[in-house]
Amino acid sequence: MSAGVPLRELAEHTGSQLQGDGSFCILAVAAVEKAGAQDISFIRDGKHRRYLETSQAGALILPADLALQYPGNCLVNSNPYLAYAKIADLLHPVPRPEAGIHPSVVLGEGVTLGEGVSIGAHVSVGGGTVIGAGVIIGAGCVLGDGCHLGEHTRLYPNVTLGYNTRLGERCIIHSGAVLGADGFGFAPDRGVWYKIPQVGNVVVGDDVEIGANTTIDRAALGSTVIGNGVKLDNLIQIGHNVQIGEHTAMAACTAVAGSVQIGKHCQIAGMCAIAGHLSIADHVVVTGTSMVSHSITQPGVYSSGTVAIENAVWRKNVARFNQLDKLARRLAELEKQLADLQNKGSN
Amino acid sequence: MSAGVPLRELAEHTGSQLQGDGSFCILAVAAVEKAGAQDISFIRDGKHRRYLETSQAGALILPADLALQYPGNCLVNSNPYLAYAKIADLLHPVPRPEAGIHPSVVLGEGVTLGEGVSIGAHVSVGGGTVIGAGVIIGAGCVLGDGCHLGEHTRLYPNVTLGYNTRLGERCIIHSGAVLGADGFGFAPDRGVWYKIPQVGNVVVGDDVEIGANTTIDRAALGSTVIGNGVKLDNLIQIGHNVQIGEHTAMAACTAVAGSVQIGKHCQIAGMCAIAGHLSIADHVVVTGTSMVSHSITQPGVYSSGTVAIENAVWRKNVARFNQLDKLARRLAELEKQLADLQNKGSN
Amino acid sequence: MSAGVPLRELAEHTGSQLQGDGSFCILAVAAVEKAGAQDISFIRDGKHRRYLETSQAGALILPADLALQYPGNCLVNSNPYLAYAKIADLLHPVPRPEAGIHPSVVLGEGVTLGEGVSIGAHVSVGGGTVIGAGVIIGAGCVLGDGCHLGEHTRLYPNVTLGYNTRLGERCIIHSGAVLGADGFGFAPDRGVWYKIPQVGNVVVGDDVEIGANTTIDRAALGSTVIGNGVKLDNLIQIGHNVQIGEHTAMAACTAVAGSVQIGKHCQIAGMCAIAGHLSIADHVVVTGTSMVSHSITQPGVYSSGTVAIENAVWRKNVARFNQLDKLARRLAELEKQLADLQNKGSN
Repeated sequence: MSAGVPLRELAEHTGSQLQGDGSFCILAVAAVEKAGAQDISFIRDGKHRRYLETSQAGALILPADLALQYPGNCLVNSNPYLAYAKIADLLHPVPRPEAGIHPSVVLGEGVTLGEGVSIGAHVSVGGGTVIGAGVIIGAGCVLGDGCHLGEHTRLYPNVTLGYNTRLGERCIIHSGAVLGADGFGFAPDRGVWYKIPQVGNVVVGDDVEIGANTTIDRAALGSTVIGNGVKLDNLIQIGHNVQIGEHTAMAACTAVAGSVQIGKHCQIAGMCAIAGHLSIADHVVVTGTSMVSHSITQPGVYSSGTVAIENAVWRKNVARFNQLDKLARRLAELEKQLADLQNKGSN
Repeated sequence: MSAGVPLRELAEHTGSQLQGDGSFCILAVAAVEKAGAQDISFIRDGKHRRYLETSQAGALILPADLALQYPGNCLVNSNPYLAYAKIADLLHPVPRPEAGIHPSVVLGEGVTLGEGVSIGAHVSVGGGTVIGAGVIIGAGCVLGDGCHLGEHTRLYPNVTLGYNTRLGERCIIHSGAVLGADGFGFAPDRGVWYKIPQVGNVVVGDDVEIGANTTIDRAALGSTVIGNGVKLDNLIQIGHNVQIGEHTAMAACTAVAGSVQIGKHCQIAGMCAIAGHLSIADHVVVTGTSMVSHSITQPGVYSSGTVAIENAVWRKNVARFNQLDKLARRLAELEKQLADLQNKGSN
Repeated sequence: MSAGVPLRELAEHTGSQLQGDGSFCILAVAAVEKAGAQDISFIRDGKHRRYLETSQAGALILPADLALQYPGNCLVNSNPYLAYAKIADLLHPVPRPEAGIHPSVVLGEGVTLGEGVSIGAHVSVGGGTVIGAGVIIGAGCVLGDGCHLGEHTRLYPNVTLGYNTRLGERCIIHSGAVLGADGFGFAPDRGVWYKIPQVGNVVVGDDVEIGANTTIDRAALGSTVIGNGVKLDNLIQIGHNVQIGEHTAMAACTAVAGSVQIGKHCQIAGMCAIAGHLSIADHVVVTGTSMVSHSITQPGVYSSGTVAIENAVWRKNVARFNQLDKLARRLAELEKQLADLQNKGSN
């Protein structure tokens, strides 16, 4: 760590307005409740106003209304979290291996390597694969034949890409992710499953991030497509022939069945299940543990599931759930009888 | 790609009746809405009848009733999807590496290799492991001691097999799958967990397919058993000592707890949870996101869960769910009071 | 297998009282219904009393009340399952590779290796990583720079540790687990996601077990912390900055969102989802498939979800669930009307 970066430079770097001592040097970013005298932190909005008084940070990134109330060094920015992220990038760059191909790497025939590529130990690259400039491939990755990795894409260790997988530029694929395994398709044949050949591939756009141990299956025919800017968390399952629109984000452990089309700018929370062959419009938000069983045609927030309560209470309620239709019919019958009685009374 | 295969041969290959020009050559399979002049596609049933008129496919595979309405080249088959799969196999064979052991492979003592085995780069094979003829092991796989792989089984890259794992013939194990990790068993010992040794193994039958990043734990004692013809999708968890009957299929992200017995020819959809020590009969279908908390003794379709709706509506309903037993008691009380009132009125 | 261990020694080893022939030799542990003449098994409590008569085991481990009813060889112990586990450890030690570094291993600069370390084939270890005495690292593992592995910790094959991951002593990490991938954090920037650098790490205590293909993300800032004695099953997701208290156990496929704090001695069953930024008290039990959407401040058992029933019945009930608030309002209206009617009647 150097002597730090003066606040003035951080203001310029983030397009923020400087308030206070521009020559004050910042060494690190930190959480607002833990930040020390040479750290910078941020407060997103008035809900966390209390930290204005208690934070020990050397400087804060604040929205304009909070900056008015703060006497210390700060950067004024309408999106403090974004400004924080840009400063964190600057002060804490992600460790990157040096360029070069480790001697243990096995390259198939006709592999094309761009400038400045780094490939770690024990990697296998299939024949005809094209690796763009500045790509980083971590140790233990296996790339099938005919893959294509756009410039500055990074595979963390132990990623597997099936043959003909195509990744755009500046993608980040975390360890254990598997792109291009066969989709799950079988034809029933007198009680036995006959495998449907999965002859398509996976196509990933630019600036996509894919989490650890996430799986994206190759298409049966054509391509499974992940749009530009999509962010997928860990342990997500994307079935064959799914299409995910640009800048959609999906949290961990969600499963998307085959041939689903998800729009742009959607947010799918964790452990959701999306049934096969549905369409989801742009700008849809689905909350955690939802089961989406029908297409969603309008932007908005959608939910299902029930929330944890004391087991003793839940046990009674869940038993009633399984009588719910009967209860509703009893209610309707009561309404009818009461109406009869009221009519009788009024006659 | 060659000059294609004449329809006459495809009819023979699939046991279909030929209708039209048997010398017409097919180059590829394609989805019915995308197929071109040298592609073959299929229509499963009358629900997709509209494609009879719009498809540009060079030939179609049709059930008899649709074939009657179709003037073009077609193969008549009672199971068009199956016939399609067989033609896809023929026209688009899965890429297979050449036989041979990559020089970087590490073989333990006493490994037995059948004829025509292919082992990719950076693979480790434990001592005493037996690898049948025609087996393909992708790069980066690790096989423990004493494993047994039946003939023509294929491990895609980065699969891990714990010691003593046994796979039958013609199995397909996708990347990242882990077979034979320890089951999850601990004895409580004054607030601390004491590990129960997991000394059994995993035994997989013939013609089994196991999806990417799926985990199948070794038995505590004895074997976790996956029957012949079972198909498991990605990211599935199979606990220790589970038994899965022949030709059962299970979709992604489902979890089966320890010691469950699942029958033959079952279909378990995605993201189901099956509690420990249950039995499920043959020919049971469980729909997506179900929690199976009791044994199922009869064939049939079983479900649980709730389905996504607008969040504003859901929030109200889910709050009511947690009052459901109280609501049911209020309903019963109302019924009683109304009956009293009716009795009074009729006296 | 040797000539076995005399019962007398097993009694001493487990702190049990011996009943019967102390010189009788035991070869193996076995399940009570499968045990043979030279096996030892256990019966936990009176619920399985029937096995006292039917078991063919050479000896049983029994609680005192059952031992009174048993004429054969037995060890009397208040915790038969624990005694069984200790005997299984003795009779069936887990296979361990010999110490030594495989020639294919790639060590970064400044790696420190304790005594008796075993590192399998095709492993990469980042610069500055410290590996304690007796550590076992399976084939294909990749350890980033600056990791720290306490003594006698074991990584099974194909584990990935991101840079600066710290593991305590005697940990067991199963195959495919990924510790230290980036947490899932993005700042929205005019419809596009800007990545929040994840500059923290993962810190794991002593005696922790982590299941196959489980993912534990590095903190955005600071550390994601897994306490001493925690046991995590397979395919679990632990988000960035989560803190898990000592001796908590979590079953497969559960997801814990970012910044959750879970207490000590909790038990979280399979496929639960715990929403971000919550706190869960010590000694909380959460049953399977629960969605925890609020903090839990009191010890106890908590649940949500619905349980699988016949699909035809479920379809009706789930439709009613989405009318539940309306049903409750109709019920309240009925109550009001009936009260009016009763008042009228009594006037």
